[in-house]
Amino acid sequence: MSESKKTGLVLVLGGARSGKSRFSETMLRESGLEVHYIATAEALDGEMNARIAHHRASRPAEWATHEEPLDLPGTLAEIARPGRAILVDCLTLWLTNLMMAERDIEAAFDALAAVCPTLEGRVVFVSNEVGLGIVPEHRMARDFRDDAGRLHQRIAALADEVYFIAAGLPLKMKG
Amino acid sequence: MSESKKTGLVLVLGGARSGKSRFSETMLRESGLEVHYIATAEALDGEMNARIAHHRASRPAEWATHEEPLDLPGTLAEIARPGRAILVDCLTLWLTNLMMAERDIEAAFDALAAVCPTLEGRVVFVSNEVGLGIVPEHRMARDFRDDAGRLHQRIAALADEVYFIAAGLPLKMKG
Amino acid sequence: MSESKKTGLVLVLGGARSGKSRFSETMLRESGLEVHYIATAEALDGEMNARIAHHRASRPAEWATHEEPLDLPGTLAEIARPGRAILVDCLTLWLTNLMMAERDIEAAFDALAAVCPTLEGRVVFVSNEVGLGIVPEHRMARDFRDDAGRLHQRIAALADEVYFIAAGLPLKMKG
Repeated sequence: MSESKKTGLVLVLGGARSGKSRFSETMLRESGLEVHYIATAEALDGEMNARIAHHRASRPAEWATHEEPLDLPGTLAEIARPGRAILVDCLTLWLTNLMMAERDIEAAFDALAAVCPTLEGRVVFVSNEVGLGIVPEHRMARDFRDDAGRLHQRIAALADEVYFIAAGLPLKMKG
Repeated sequence: MSESKKTGLVLVLGGARSGKSRFSETMLRESGLEVHYIATAEALDGEMNARIAHHRASRPAEWATHEEPLDLPGTLAEIARPGRAILVDCLTLWLTNLMMAERDIEAAFDALAAVCPTLEGRVVFVSNEVGLGIVPEHRMARDFRDDAGRLHQRIAALADEVYFIAAGLPLKMKG
Repeated sequence: MSESKKTGLVLVLGGARSGKSRFSETMLRESGLEVHYIATAEALDGEMNARIAHHRASRPAEWATHEEPLDLPGTLAEIARPGRAILVDCLTLWLTNLMMAERDIEAAFDALAAVCPTLEGRVVFVSNEVGLGIVPEHRMARDFRDDAGRLHQRIAALADEVYFIAAGLPLKMKG
């Protein structure tokens, strides 16, 4: 139990098709824990649909799936428990959904940061690192990468382990 | 021979002007091996021409150069041999060429992945990490970074050593 | 003195909102040195103004601030001395200013590289890693990321310590 507590909260950062979802899924498959999957993606177009289907096909069929585009803190509070692992894929899509729905980003980040220390069992957040290209031309894209950066800093500060994934290989940043 | 086998396949990832080519060239210059260079770049405009000339000027004159925009697997199979090192610069330009020529990307990746384990001597692949900025607006750019990410994962899984280069400094991810 | 010499020059690289400024500020706050801050940012619009105010609010009030958009080498030469630390935030904005003012980029880089080894005390350069997204559409953005990459390589080669920051966490690349 104390060991499970030590690696309770995990943040897995990586670029597009870096293997961050697969790394997280493998980590949980090998954990022996009962796994619940929170999908933040909404299938708004065919391209997104294909990505979602691609990800779903790679997950074990026995993992329970929860589709939750907006109320991530509430869903986590509801389903987290000792002996269970929750995989959240991914935080950047959650942020996108919050922006599209014109929700209060700061309030949502505060709610997530507040719920994290109360969660029992293991929670693995997957997220896209998006801040290492040139400054985007559009204001919304700049806001998005700023918000994503601040969210990653907050979750990383709370996390027991943080990984940066490139080319499918993990680099441990914390833990 | 067994030592050369251990570090047979190397992937060197990095951003634009990160020093990934120079790092790879220095590694091979110090290897004492006979070096062959596969340039995947095609000089389609003046800017590209300048980049190619810049890279060429930094390489030892005695390195044999092969210009091969498309059939990278075939060229590798043809020129690889024990005691020889091949520097491929770079995979992302190869991918660009495949897309421009409307080739079957999956078949090309399969061919490269199939040939890698059969190559004798040392092979160093240089490639651009392009997946750490915000999602590109254009579909073709999104496809490109997805394909690049998948290619890097495949080559990294086969590689004996993987490096991530930033500001000219190597970070060993594998090996 | 010899210890201060060993960690005289520091480069802190990171993406947007990666926590690179905060990491650098914390490092200097804990150094016990008298800190001078060189701000390369110019408040040309409201968005930039907000960013500058945000950064200023996070710094100790007793740090002397120097606003210097262009003559960074001259300002460093003027204010560096033993027992003092200088925080330069950031090199990529300095490069932006040089481009906007149509200055000779190479000459400016040469001047900075020439002054660095002569500086006494500690100097910490903060800069944005911008080369890990897809190739930008516009020529100016491509030039910018190429120039930034070359500048980072030059400063990293001179530096005693280099850090890469992601999600607020430092990864030591050199030192």
